[in-house]
Amino acid sequence: MTSPFPFLAIILEVAIIALFGLFVGDEQDQNNYQQPNSTKSTAVDGFLELYPLFQDVHVMIFVGFGFLMTFLKKYGFSSVGINLLIAALGLQWGTLVQGFLHSRGEKIHVGIKNMINADFSTATVLISFGAVLGKISPCQMLIMTIIEIAVFAANEHLVTEVFMASDIGASMTIHAFGAYFGLAVAGVLYRPGLRRGHDNNESMYHSDLFAMIGTLFLWIFWPSFNSALAEAGDKQHWAIVNTYFSLAACVLTAYAFSSLVGHRGKLDMVHIQNATLAGGVAVGTCADMAIHPYISMIIGSIAGMVSVLGFKFVTPLFATKLRIHDTCGVHSLHGLPGVIGGLAGIGAVALEVSNRSTPAMQAAALGSSIGTAVVGGLITGLILKIPICGQPPDENCFDDSVFWEVPRWREQDVRFHEHDGHNQLEPEF
Amino acid sequence: MTSPFPFLAIILEVAIIALFGLFVGDEQDQNNYQQPNSTKSTAVDGFLELYPLFQDVHVMIFVGFGFLMTFLKKYGFSSVGINLLIAALGLQWGTLVQGFLHSRGEKIHVGIKNMINADFSTATVLISFGAVLGKISPCQMLIMTIIEIAVFAANEHLVTEVFMASDIGASMTIHAFGAYFGLAVAGVLYRPGLRRGHDNNESMYHSDLFAMIGTLFLWIFWPSFNSALAEAGDKQHWAIVNTYFSLAACVLTAYAFSSLVGHRGKLDMVHIQNATLAGGVAVGTCADMAIHPYISMIIGSIAGMVSVLGFKFVTPLFATKLRIHDTCGVHSLHGLPGVIGGLAGIGAVALEVSNRSTPAMQAAALGSSIGTAVVGGLITGLILKIPICGQPPDENCFDDSVFWEVPRWREQDVRFHEHDGHNQLEPEF
Amino acid sequence: MTSPFPFLAIILEVAIIALFGLFVGDEQDQNNYQQPNSTKSTAVDGFLELYPLFQDVHVMIFVGFGFLMTFLKKYGFSSVGINLLIAALGLQWGTLVQGFLHSRGEKIHVGIKNMINADFSTATVLISFGAVLGKISPCQMLIMTIIEIAVFAANEHLVTEVFMASDIGASMTIHAFGAYFGLAVAGVLYRPGLRRGHDNNESMYHSDLFAMIGTLFLWIFWPSFNSALAEAGDKQHWAIVNTYFSLAACVLTAYAFSSLVGHRGKLDMVHIQNATLAGGVAVGTCADMAIHPYISMIIGSIAGMVSVLGFKFVTPLFATKLRIHDTCGVHSLHGLPGVIGGLAGIGAVALEVSNRSTPAMQAAALGSSIGTAVVGGLITGLILKIPICGQPPDENCFDDSVFWEVPRWREQDVRFHEHDGHNQLEPEF
Repeated sequence: MTSPFPFLAIILEVAIIALFGLFVGDEQDQNNYQQPNSTKSTAVDGFLELYPLFQDVHVMIFVGFGFLMTFLKKYGFSSVGINLLIAALGLQWGTLVQGFLHSRGEKIHVGIKNMINADFSTATVLISFGAVLGKISPCQMLIMTIIEIAVFAANEHLVTEVFMASDIGASMTIHAFGAYFGLAVAGVLYRPGLRRGHDNNESMYHSDLFAMIGTLFLWIFWPSFNSALAEAGDKQHWAIVNTYFSLAACVLTAYAFSSLVGHRGKLDMVHIQNATLAGGVAVGTCADMAIHPYISMIIGSIAGMVSVLGFKFVTPLFATKLRIHDTCGVHSLHGLPGVIGGLAGIGAVALEVSNRSTPAMQAAALGSSIGTAVVGGLITGLILKIPICGQPPDENCFDDSVFWEVPRWREQDVRFHEHDGHNQLEPEF
Repeated sequence: MTSPFPFLAIILEVAIIALFGLFVGDEQDQNNYQQPNSTKSTAVDGFLELYPLFQDVHVMIFVGFGFLMTFLKKYGFSSVGINLLIAALGLQWGTLVQGFLHSRGEKIHVGIKNMINADFSTATVLISFGAVLGKISPCQMLIMTIIEIAVFAANEHLVTEVFMASDIGASMTIHAFGAYFGLAVAGVLYRPGLRRGHDNNESMYHSDLFAMIGTLFLWIFWPSFNSALAEAGDKQHWAIVNTYFSLAACVLTAYAFSSLVGHRGKLDMVHIQNATLAGGVAVGTCADMAIHPYISMIIGSIAGMVSVLGFKFVTPLFATKLRIHDTCGVHSLHGLPGVIGGLAGIGAVALEVSNRSTPAMQAAALGSSIGTAVVGGLITGLILKIPICGQPPDENCFDDSVFWEVPRWREQDVRFHEHDGHNQLEPEF
Repeated sequence: MTSPFPFLAIILEVAIIALFGLFVGDEQDQNNYQQPNSTKSTAVDGFLELYPLFQDVHVMIFVGFGFLMTFLKKYGFSSVGINLLIAALGLQWGTLVQGFLHSRGEKIHVGIKNMINADFSTATVLISFGAVLGKISPCQMLIMTIIEIAVFAANEHLVTEVFMASDIGASMTIHAFGAYFGLAVAGVLYRPGLRRGHDNNESMYHSDLFAMIGTLFLWIFWPSFNSALAEAGDKQHWAIVNTYFSLAACVLTAYAFSSLVGHRGKLDMVHIQNATLAGGVAVGTCADMAIHPYISMIIGSIAGMVSVLGFKFVTPLFATKLRIHDTCGVHSLHGLPGVIGGLAGIGAVALEVSNRSTPAMQAAALGSSIGTAVVGGLITGLILKIPICGQPPDENCFDDSVFWEVPRWREQDVRFHEHDGHNQLEPEF
């Protein structure tokens, strides 16, 4: 049977192009639309000024998330490849969905903030992708991308426009949302056959190094993620400074607790790849508030610790008790730290560090994000069970060769061996 | 016999330093030269404003092109290493050649746009390098760099100053030019001995992952490439937005067609690494025009499709029928999409989306870029055949050990094995 | 026995948070502090303007230094992982130490320049880390980080505030300092048992490619490193341009001399990974002076040559004659080129290219940087010998499995083999 994947991809792209033709304004108009602030020189009308932050976020989405998931020894092509696919689809679809919600009937005009928001909306799907990594087909991921971004945009609209809650770094609307959505999907798609693990569901030495490329670019550019949409000026600077220190503090506790819970005090790459980022997640909600750097560092320290403990104790528990198998441990990287972020936001507002919102509204935002995610994820999981797009069978999970032409491993190695002798003995220039 | 490579490299560097001493103005003057726009604050006099875009392009040149070519299993050192060498030479030489053409007798002054243009000029050589990858010596590449950049600068001068054609993202002057120049060189240097392929001319699992580093950084920063030299303000924003959407749409069709033409619907890493970038190439010529995002997406979609079909059907045909062996498939990534870009430019001007140029002038620019490239490439190929610099023999093609001290492969692996048991059993902190 | 590592990490983080609470001003004040230049629009008050340069430096610190050191075949986790750990600790501690020295009793306020300086201070430790790589425990590195940054900040204060010397790219205060500090530590910690080398102290094919990721990001962003703290306007532009050309010239001579000193003219990856960066180090001191690009290129050319010769002849000599084993060859990458930078600075000031300083003061700065580094390094080495933190035994040097849970190598390979046959024969979508 031919896979429906290529047809679905083409249909989605054609539909999106048609919707862009209908609902996105042309660039001549956009023009006039963006120029009210024309007293500033064109050079600093906001587009080029935020463009470096956008590019940082762009690197996080495509290199950061993509390589972070290459830790599996035989699933690197899919990790980085399907990541690219769903992010490319997601940013187009996100531009439309968020545009519909904000343009109130007018044409959508694409400025730098729309591009940042579009990239953000894909982050949600990429987080959820981590929960189901290795157990889902590209075709299923296309469907999940379309649904999840729509639900995300609805919740984000509710949080920011109705509850008027603060969540500049999207601890709640992206991280907690993406994690719990993914966990709900993973729960519905649970495979009893993998209860005892799977030979391919582990890393090898070099796949762990590839994953560190992802970790580091996420870590480095996280201050841009948390500040890209902040109010220009002090708030944006605070968002950068708070995230910078929260992440740094988080690294220390993540290493410490990884060693503490490890066999003979050894560090675990899973923790280093993931828990070192929890500080960026947890400081997100109150990143642009004047919370003082030492508070950011406390938030980051707690997040690093909780995340490691989550990976060590909670993620396995989810698999055995709740029948939710979370491949990348997104619950420990995005879920728990996202909740910490939401709670910190409630605290900050309660202590009147910021008075843009109320504790109740912040709590409503957190509840709404988790609730919508769980309900949305459960429904999405049921839709993905409809056997149109074909899931990989249990024995082929975590294996690129189901979807990709994969070069052979060993035969090449042997060939290297023979050539090696040759090369070492008779080099020529 | 000693290789002439080090002597040639030193002679070229000494010559370039001498030419810089003679023809480049000193920094005190440059100063006055750049200050007419001194009403703007120093901070935004154009240098620092464009610097982030320059750095994006810089990453594309050195990491993007360099790692994209590491897909070959035994040629990673040369791919990333010779890429660095020729880009470093090319940017110095490009600064001079482009300076000569634009400074009209005055001293050359190096501003941010010169640096962007210098990096651009190296892109041409790096594209051509892809066509001859694995079959050429570093020494030959130095010679090719010097010749190609001179020819490139002449054609680029013709296109922009004489034909007054639009080509902001350089679909014609860099991509089509670089591809056809490289193909012409590859045709002249054709090796009948490799007609049936070569054991080393294939990827392995991790080399394909290294190549994805290149792909992703090219993909992410392509909007900067297409906009770096655009007119500040709207045109620059459009160039960014159009490229962003063209690339995103391109990914969807590249994946779809890769699956459609693949064995049992499987994706092929060659397509994902390359064809996903065709949208950036093809939208280049009209990126800074008000073409509407949905038109960019149509251009990108077509480019992704054409590029995959090119890799599947045209590249092999070139090897068998035209006796042109194109190692990286630059014809399908840069050649065909570059022509699409040129044609889209003709169309856009004909439809008066932009009236900076005429369809005839755009067509002349496309024709000139391809014609100059083919003639320049043929002559360069003949020069490279002069046996001073020594090509690697057929059996040593695609093999780093001809030019590099390569660590042994297998012996180490075995040693790992022994240590492993030890390490697993007796860890110590 | 439990390792003291996690406890030390937690104690340090708690102490730093407490010091931040006491000595760092809150963000509301910081505000007023930064606003004197409030005639400029908020958008360009210096924070967001320098932020892209900061992020370039940030990438250099975490990806550049981190991956540069992954060249060892079995020490990649530690290279990139301990790099992250000590940089995260160092930037927090550096913010405090540098803040104490500059704030003269007032509260420390964190702006973008503090963040750049904090990242810079970590660079010093990361350079020294290269000298002792593979022979030291994470716990020892925490202690070394705390001491070295304090000594670095004292010397840097002396150089810039007392000697009033120019050293914008920190050739003396970071590169020479970091190298000689590390060498002194390595000398004290000399292991006679490793005199004849160690099986693990070598690269493998893919570890060399991972290292090139580090090299390239360092190379690309070095102009940002040398210009981030330069005076806005011309001086900053010069710093960018001079570094750009110095690095490009350096690549040519590094390749040439690598081939000249190589067996049968072959290139050596050690030289390409390292010596190509020497131009960035050596041009540092006078990067922001109007030295003319061709002078930068001469400085870069010399640095590339000296660095390769250093790796070939001086580094081995240090190991055999001085009993200083320098794992990464930091003497040849940072030490010698740093001294060249210092000398170039003396020359530039003597020739009145810049009159901010005198030749005597520049010489004092160079002497102070090397002297402080050697004395500081010797004392630090003695402290690290105190057997609290436990060095790895000789036979476990250069081996991740001492500190990390490492996935098995061979067993997986074998498993790949079996699956491979399966995958190649029975693909499914």
